[in-house]
Amino acid sequence: MTQPHTAPHEPNQRIVLARRPSGWPDESCFRLESCPEPDCGPQDVLVQAIWLSLDPYLRGRMNEGPSYAPGFALDRPIVSRVVGRVIASRNERFREGDFVWGFLDWSLRVRVPRGEGLHRIDPALGKPSLAISAMGMPGLTAWVGVVELGKVSPGDTVYISSAAGTIGQLAGQFARQAGARVIGSVGSDDKLDFVLRHCGYHAGFNYKRQDMDDALRELCPNGIDVYLDNVGGATLEAALRHANVGARFPICGMISRYNELEDSGVKGMQLLVSKRITMTGFIVYDHVHKLAAYQQRAAAWFGSGEMRFHEDIVHGLAQAPAALLGMLRGEAMGKRLVQVSTAPPTPA
Amino acid sequence: MTQPHTAPHEPNQRIVLARRPSGWPDESCFRLESCPEPDCGPQDVLVQAIWLSLDPYLRGRMNEGPSYAPGFALDRPIVSRVVGRVIASRNERFREGDFVWGFLDWSLRVRVPRGEGLHRIDPALGKPSLAISAMGMPGLTAWVGVVELGKVSPGDTVYISSAAGTIGQLAGQFARQAGARVIGSVGSDDKLDFVLRHCGYHAGFNYKRQDMDDALRELCPNGIDVYLDNVGGATLEAALRHANVGARFPICGMISRYNELEDSGVKGMQLLVSKRITMTGFIVYDHVHKLAAYQQRAAAWFGSGEMRFHEDIVHGLAQAPAALLGMLRGEAMGKRLVQVSTAPPTPA
Repeated sequence: MTQPHTAPHEPNQRIVLARRPSGWPDESCFRLESCPEPDCGPQDVLVQAIWLSLDPYLRGRMNEGPSYAPGFALDRPIVSRVVGRVIASRNERFREGDFVWGFLDWSLRVRVPRGEGLHRIDPALGKPSLAISAMGMPGLTAWVGVVELGKVSPGDTVYISSAAGTIGQLAGQFARQAGARVIGSVGSDDKLDFVLRHCGYHAGFNYKRQDMDDALRELCPNGIDVYLDNVGGATLEAALRHANVGARFPICGMISRYNELEDSGVKGMQLLVSKRITMTGFIVYDHVHKLAAYQQRAAAWFGSGEMRFHEDIVHGLAQAPAALLGMLRGEAMGKRLVQVSTAPPTPA
Repeated sequence: MTQPHTAPHEPNQRIVLARRPSGWPDESCFRLESCPEPDCGPQDVLVQAIWLSLDPYLRGRMNEGPSYAPGFALDRPIVSRVVGRVIASRNERFREGDFVWGFLDWSLRVRVPRGEGLHRIDPALGKPSLAISAMGMPGLTAWVGVVELGKVSPGDTVYISSAAGTIGQLAGQFARQAGARVIGSVGSDDKLDFVLRHCGYHAGFNYKRQDMDDALRELCPNGIDVYLDNVGGATLEAALRHANVGARFPICGMISRYNELEDSGVKGMQLLVSKRITMTGFIVYDHVHKLAAYQQRAAAWFGSGEMRFHEDIVHGLAQAPAALLGMLRGEAMGKRLVQVSTAPPTPA
């Protein structure tokens, strides 16, 4: 019923992994290439990509070694969460015009065999792109980290690294809603301004300009009760030093380690004992059964304007590698998406 | 009613901290010296020491820096758990002849002001020295680590470092009782033989003779579900590498770090996320309210011979520094005690 948003004569294209990085990746790790127009076989669904999601874990999947998701294959497309629209369907679960998301190839148009792994996006949940951020797994990650594992109570001091990132901007708002004093660290003054204005943070600091121990001593005078870690490294070490007895450290990633060839270790781990700290590594997929309940609550918060989610949108499939590299360097403000075709009007 | 077990004309003596160690301590850190005979003032209790407890945490208290217990003062006595007998009491809670324990000076005879911090030992719980091991805080440590934080279930693989130590020999028996396959690491072939024969371990290895990764691969073919850590360092790193998804790591100490001037960090911490591991540092004093219930259960196990506890007894107060240093080097087999006066007959 709806026309595809890319003119049919624009040839299909995709981004593939050209070589594995050693340390920091660069653009030579990727290649933009033409690819065949997908055919819609029995039970298949064809999707026109609109937004590609850029996430820190993609760096890990560029390696061959085992991680919590297998590595990308050489000369095969990069895969990430993609929000798109159904342009053809021979599957009764999907209709042309449906908004959908799935882990899809970085390609303008893609065939989803038997519609497997494709999820319909409920238009009632707001802007479709939020299905892979505030209404999706990153939102659930922040929720599980802050509420379930962090057990944030009123009066707690919650420290969140990468505060301006996808998870950080949500976690800050959830922690404040739970009654905590919320402190964030970010990598630029613009991001600091952003999280203080828009993401519920009571205070924060730019770790590139201020010593972490000085900042935490000043901003967390009563110590840290919950540290939501997604960077590891020196940030985690500083959080250990300023943690209170009984602190909870939900750990959802260690991005600072993804580009290191040599693991320099986390120092100060003996503080785990003296301060009775619990560190819990978690992966949101283990909690996917809670998503529907989370979405119902989150849709009200974000729909009413009580909470907000900021997207950092880069345009054009050819820009995706540079946009990913920039995000890994810390340039993105909020959730970085690559918009590869015309977005539909945002629902009211 | 009972005579003191030291002849009254033997002058009182004590061991004091002579200097703070830098790195590994040696005997010059201690001094044996004469001290006054204690006077029993109103409400006071005089105790004849029988057994001094040697524990890894004492190394930490020889430092000045903050740890979970304050540092010992220079030229003042070393303090640890001591089991003794009341030789005079002006306190209604204690009677001459009572077996007691408390954190007391390393001295033959000591005054306990107002009896504060002194605990009567229930003779029904077995040999009085067990009040500071199997029936006391170390037993509760093993119990909390294995059962409460480790959540050991039948079929789990449990790995325990320092398997021949006080906590290790108890934890092994508790884990086996809970239905687990129990693997231990020790620092000598004698200790390996000991834990396999007496402490419930199904298998184990001498980490000084066998590569830890090779040993864990061979002995834990289904991976590690629970690692009870009291050493940290390379042992903790190896356990992370061989852990299963969802593994629990109760951490009650990091003895390998106590003598290090430079913290080399724990490598491989990103495995916490990919394997969803929970590390929980704990201190048994937070669990002291569970002690009486624990003792009731443990007294049955150890009284019936279902479980056993092995003590490594060194004789003479003057030997205490060397005995402590030897224990820190890993020489002790089981719980090391220094017996400083004649022990009473063991109850049947």
